Amino acid sequence: MSRSTRKLHLAVAQLGPVQRADSRAQAVRRLLAMLEDAAARGARWLTFPELALTTFFPRWDLEDPAEIRGFFETEMPGPETQPLFDAARQRGIGFSLGYAELDGDTQYNTSILVGPDGRILGKYRKIHIPGDAQSRSGAALQHLEKKYFAVGDLGFPVWKTEDAAIGMCICNDRRWPETFRVMGLQGVDVVMLGYNTPSGYVQWNEPIHLRMHHHLLSLQAAAYQNACWVAAAAKAGIEEDSPMIGGSAIVAPTGEVMVRTFSEDDEVINFVCDLSVCDHYRANIFNFAAHRRPEHYGLIVSRTGAGAPLSAG
Amino acid sequence: MSRSTRKLHLAVAQLGPVQRADSRAQAVRRLLAMLEDAAARGARWLTFPELALTTFFPRWDLEDPAEIRGFFETEMPGPETQPLFDAARQRGIGFSLGYAELDGDTQYNTSILVGPDGRILGKYRKIHIPGDAQSRSGAALQHLEKKYFAVGDLGFPVWKTEDAAIGMCICNDRRWPETFRVMGLQGVDVVMLGYNTPSGYVQWNEPIHLRMHHHLLSLQAAAYQNACWVAAAAKAGIEEDSPMIGGSAIVAPTGEVMVRTFSEDDEVINFVCDLSVCDHYRANIFNFAAHRRPEHYGLIVSRTGAGAPLSAG
Repeated sequence: MSRSTRKLHLAVAQLGPVQRADSRAQAVRRLLAMLEDAAARGARWLTFPELALTTFFPRWDLEDPAEIRGFFETEMPGPETQPLFDAARQRGIGFSLGYAELDGDTQYNTSILVGPDGRILGKYRKIHIPGDAQSRSGAALQHLEKKYFAVGDLGFPVWKTEDAAIGMCICNDRRWPETFRVMGLQGVDVVMLGYNTPSGYVQWNEPIHLRMHHHLLSLQAAAYQNACWVAAAAKAGIEEDSPMIGGSAIVAPTGEVMVRTFSEDDEVINFVCDLSVCDHYRANIFNFAAHRRPEHYGLIVSRTGAGAPLSAG
Repeated sequence: MSRSTRKLHLAVAQLGPVQRADSRAQAVRRLLAMLEDAAARGARWLTFPELALTTFFPRWDLEDPAEIRGFFETEMPGPETQPLFDAARQRGIGFSLGYAELDGDTQYNTSILVGPDGRILGKYRKIHIPGDAQSRSGAALQHLEKKYFAVGDLGFPVWKTEDAAIGMCICNDRRWPETFRVMGLQGVDVVMLGYNTPSGYVQWNEPIHLRMHHHLLSLQAAAYQNACWVAAAAKAGIEEDSPMIGGSAIVAPTGEVMVRTFSEDDEVINFVCDLSVCDHYRANIFNFAAHRRPEHYGLIVSRTGAGAPLSAG
């Protein structure tokens, strides 16, 4: 494959705050406007945020089942989201979209991959669910994803499209190197991910500036160590008095942030990505077949939590 | 354990170039001077570089067995290295030291951990051996570690000392997240590592500035994602016309570089590390037991090289 055929134009649509009173139709109109913008710039694939259709409701300890149910989708596309699929087909641009999914009785934090033909290629359900299952008493902020979402049951799939091998993950997944390594071992070229990351940390008094640092560090290390591009989309800004970081970015396999958002509001960024760089790394320093040593990695799957040191040689 | 008892004073001894004509005794004198410097600053544990006793010989395709043998140690301590062990005991400072080890007929790239009492706590043998087993014809630089070193056979041990749980890795190991995760799953507090990293990349025309970026990125991600401190020591500068990066550093569990070397020559850096930060991360965002999902990590051990995507759900 010649170098010129390995260019791929990616875009990221950062979404500003979605308030509780905002309708899905309002959210979809904003997403559609950004899809049109990305398409007009010539982008081929577009990343939308996690839980892009509603406010980030895991900040609240809701009890009313009907109220909780109102944040979830039971079909995709549904009447309110169908326009996104139509626009994708009309403009020939694929996208990933995060939403809360109700499947039977089970709730997932889900992202769907839609091709430039407007058809669903596949689905990912978030595996690394952060936060708590019950409210922390006295905490200024709650982060109750473990209350609302089951652990994803679809693994970390990678889809071979005509443009690239594409995978997805969601928010907290990006902090865990296992996420990207499992996709890297399937030859992923591009990982698309959305996130809602509170600017303040709920669990200890970590300096606030570290939130952005950890976000970018995680993307950069993942892209470098797996020789892939990463396209990450925030839902950002102040939702219901709760601030969330922006910093949506497209990151190269060199571990460099090539473009990132400036605002904490609706904002599109794009970059023409050279996929041949993936090949260079995979053939050399990250030639997994030549250099990895799984016989020494057993603890990664045999232990969940940390335990005592193995008896040292 | 109170916060005040979880402080640990670390130092790193970067070594400038060691030329082929330099004797072991000369190298050890330089290491001793830096050990004295670190001890005078109050440091308790000191990291020395990889292959610290000789020049970085894997840059050459040597054929004479006696000549190759001359770069390897058959005993540790030996007559030339004993002064380091004596100084450690006298000054009450522990250290890690990298050297080429000949064990029977097998050659390893090894690092030894010596306690503040001057006794050997344990040994690590490098697992991720980079480069080639045979010369690349026409290459300006060679990197022949696969010719000279067998893959380490001791796993990634962690030693519980009275000060902290300490692990080691060597150079290219730091680019592989599996290295640190296996130690993280043993509760490692501090990872000590040495490296010799050529400033130019032998395998494709990667921009040279990325060498330092990738080095620091790998340390920062590893420290953050495993809630540990990382102390990394370069052999730096121009050895036999071959330049190597400096950038020796002590990195916090926040993923921040707290101190780093300025030069590409002999240079000591030190930092008083707060180990209680490890506890905060381990109790919250990196509570492995609460958040990891090994049932979805199987490919990390079942595959060595990258393969086709799994059938996607």
